[in-house]
Amino acid sequence: MLDRFKVPKEDEVKVSESALRKTVQEIFAKTGLSKEDSQNGAEVLVTADLRGVESHGVSNMLRIYVQLFEQGELNKTPNLTVIKETPGTATIDADRALGIMAGVPAMERAISKARNVGVGIVTMFNSGHMGAVGHFSMMAAQQDMVGMCSVAAGTGILPTFGAEPKLGTNPISIASPSNLEAPILFDAATSAVAGNKLRLAARVDATLLPGWVASSDGSPIMEETKIVNRDDYHQLPLGGSREQGSHKGYGFGLMVEILGSLLSGDDPGMLRDTPSWTPSRTYFAAYNVEAFTDVNLYKKNMDDMLSTLKNTPPAPGHERVLYPGLSESEEMAKRKETGIPLHKEVIEWFSSTTKRLGLEEMELL
Amino acid sequence: MLDRFKVPKEDEVKVSESALRKTVQEIFAKTGLSKEDSQNGAEVLVTADLRGVESHGVSNMLRIYVQLFEQGELNKTPNLTVIKETPGTATIDADRALGIMAGVPAMERAISKARNVGVGIVTMFNSGHMGAVGHFSMMAAQQDMVGMCSVAAGTGILPTFGAEPKLGTNPISIASPSNLEAPILFDAATSAVAGNKLRLAARVDATLLPGWVASSDGSPIMEETKIVNRDDYHQLPLGGSREQGSHKGYGFGLMVEILGSLLSGDDPGMLRDTPSWTPSRTYFAAYNVEAFTDVNLYKKNMDDMLSTLKNTPPAPGHERVLYPGLSESEEMAKRKETGIPLHKEVIEWFSSTTKRLGLEEMELL
Repeated sequence: MLDRFKVPKEDEVKVSESALRKTVQEIFAKTGLSKEDSQNGAEVLVTADLRGVESHGVSNMLRIYVQLFEQGELNKTPNLTVIKETPGTATIDADRALGIMAGVPAMERAISKARNVGVGIVTMFNSGHMGAVGHFSMMAAQQDMVGMCSVAAGTGILPTFGAEPKLGTNPISIASPSNLEAPILFDAATSAVAGNKLRLAARVDATLLPGWVASSDGSPIMEETKIVNRDDYHQLPLGGSREQGSHKGYGFGLMVEILGSLLSGDDPGMLRDTPSWTPSRTYFAAYNVEAFTDVNLYKKNMDDMLSTLKNTPPAPGHERVLYPGLSESEEMAKRKETGIPLHKEVIEWFSSTTKRLGLEEMELL
Repeated sequence: MLDRFKVPKEDEVKVSESALRKTVQEIFAKTGLSKEDSQNGAEVLVTADLRGVESHGVSNMLRIYVQLFEQGELNKTPNLTVIKETPGTATIDADRALGIMAGVPAMERAISKARNVGVGIVTMFNSGHMGAVGHFSMMAAQQDMVGMCSVAAGTGILPTFGAEPKLGTNPISIASPSNLEAPILFDAATSAVAGNKLRLAARVDATLLPGWVASSDGSPIMEETKIVNRDDYHQLPLGGSREQGSHKGYGFGLMVEILGSLLSGDDPGMLRDTPSWTPSRTYFAAYNVEAFTDVNLYKKNMDDMLSTLKNTPPAPGHERVLYPGLSESEEMAKRKETGIPLHKEVIEWFSSTTKRLGLEEMELL
């Protein structure tokens, strides 16, 4: 993440991974979720915070999730149903489960199919927010498979040349096993910037860069902008303007609508009246490496590729070349040791929530 | 394609689809290829020209293909071998076939697997250039399947922050069936601009836009640039600079290396000494719509999505909103009627080549 999105040092309070996981799990359980769902949900959120992906960790998301469960918009005791299935594919109705929980059995099913027929594709509709979808891709990578996960949700992104937003931020993620090098994990919105990052920018008082948003008539804003009210802007696809390639970002966004929304039998967000709660449509893929080639050869090639990338001479003004997942792996190692920095305002929310629910207060470092 | 890449009116000579197909097919056959390969190759090239994708049609590519066959770098009589196979997957050694021909049986195999187990994934290594990969995605769409095809080839693209190019232009394509609306067909390089477009720009005397290329030390060139020698520049990933999202274009490029190069058991281009002929590593996917959901429901949702997109009010200064494949479908209808415009210099090449090979001269309109 760009530095502009980090919690300012003076507002930061640190908490250990285990204390954060314990409290998040207890909050979910007290809210009425099963033990398994509470554990899975805590795992997805805390992993995002460990990797430094604050936009998808506890700070932005947990309070919204709890609220949606308490309002009854998310189902605390969902019954996930496979409505269509073949040896290589399945389509799941998530019964308004929260996606960060429902995604776990969905990807497990894709992995099991890949073990049987080389590849497994699962689509899932009717779930809540999916969190950082890279988490599910990584589940496959930990089983010596290539994992992919993408989610279509929302309608905040303009099509190229358009004045009305039609697409979700529709992130695409891929993860792969490796041997010696930190695993590659790419997870990026197909918009110029992730939706969560706009809220985060407002909280940490950061500005938005040229080509990230458009004014309400659809004209791309090509100078740096201080965001006050997030709702005054439309988001642009990756690329920003047509000349800079926004038709490609738009196309990648549509790819996710096809693989997530259309293939799950659901209609894309743009065809719905937006309810207060918009369901997500998710695509999960697992490719069993050993179905395609020798696993050791694959991992050796992967290690060589990753070390080649990180040892590429940098352009003037840059310290080093990264690959997706490298700095997040480094951050994770650091945060496992020294703790996860949260904004003091987030700590206050934890404090009042544990009190309200009659839980032990979260232990701070 | 941007207008700057079109053939200038005064240099344009028109030829019918059937005349172009006949001559291209005869040139391949006379070069020593089988009847089937000659037909498949002509089909891929002429379809690109019909759709207005000049960068991947006869103008840029045919003379190079013929040269590589005549020099023996491409195999005129290849023996495609399936070296690993499961019900849902296959890995193919293309035996130095030209990719525009080898891609046809590869995608047919993916389609047949998808008919049996819901999804089919084929990876292929050791082939020549793949042409416009969207062609293969479209083969699946014509069978009521979602098709995807991506190819990793070359090493001309910089990683974000890097001073040495490491990745190919690595295009990603997806096509889907629809009912009433022209089918969606997205096909885009994960670089800011396709490699072929640089050569094309030099031919039609066009300039390159900010963020498309970097100077030789890796610094992005952020003003409009007239290209003289294509080799003085490195190409940037989609996004251009980190602030504009180049780490996402870089990530999409790596996704193609994983799915194409690594999964086929081949090493990515960046790990090779570049030979005069660099083999392509290709990923083919077919998703059988009826394995996931009802085909009629799928097509209705698709039609509704496509008509919603094209009827989106445009931003100031734009005439209408497009979706990927729409203007290409319109162009195809027009060119089937009024002919395909080729640069007079390309016509001269056809004339001298048919003479050299003892073939009938191509009929012009």
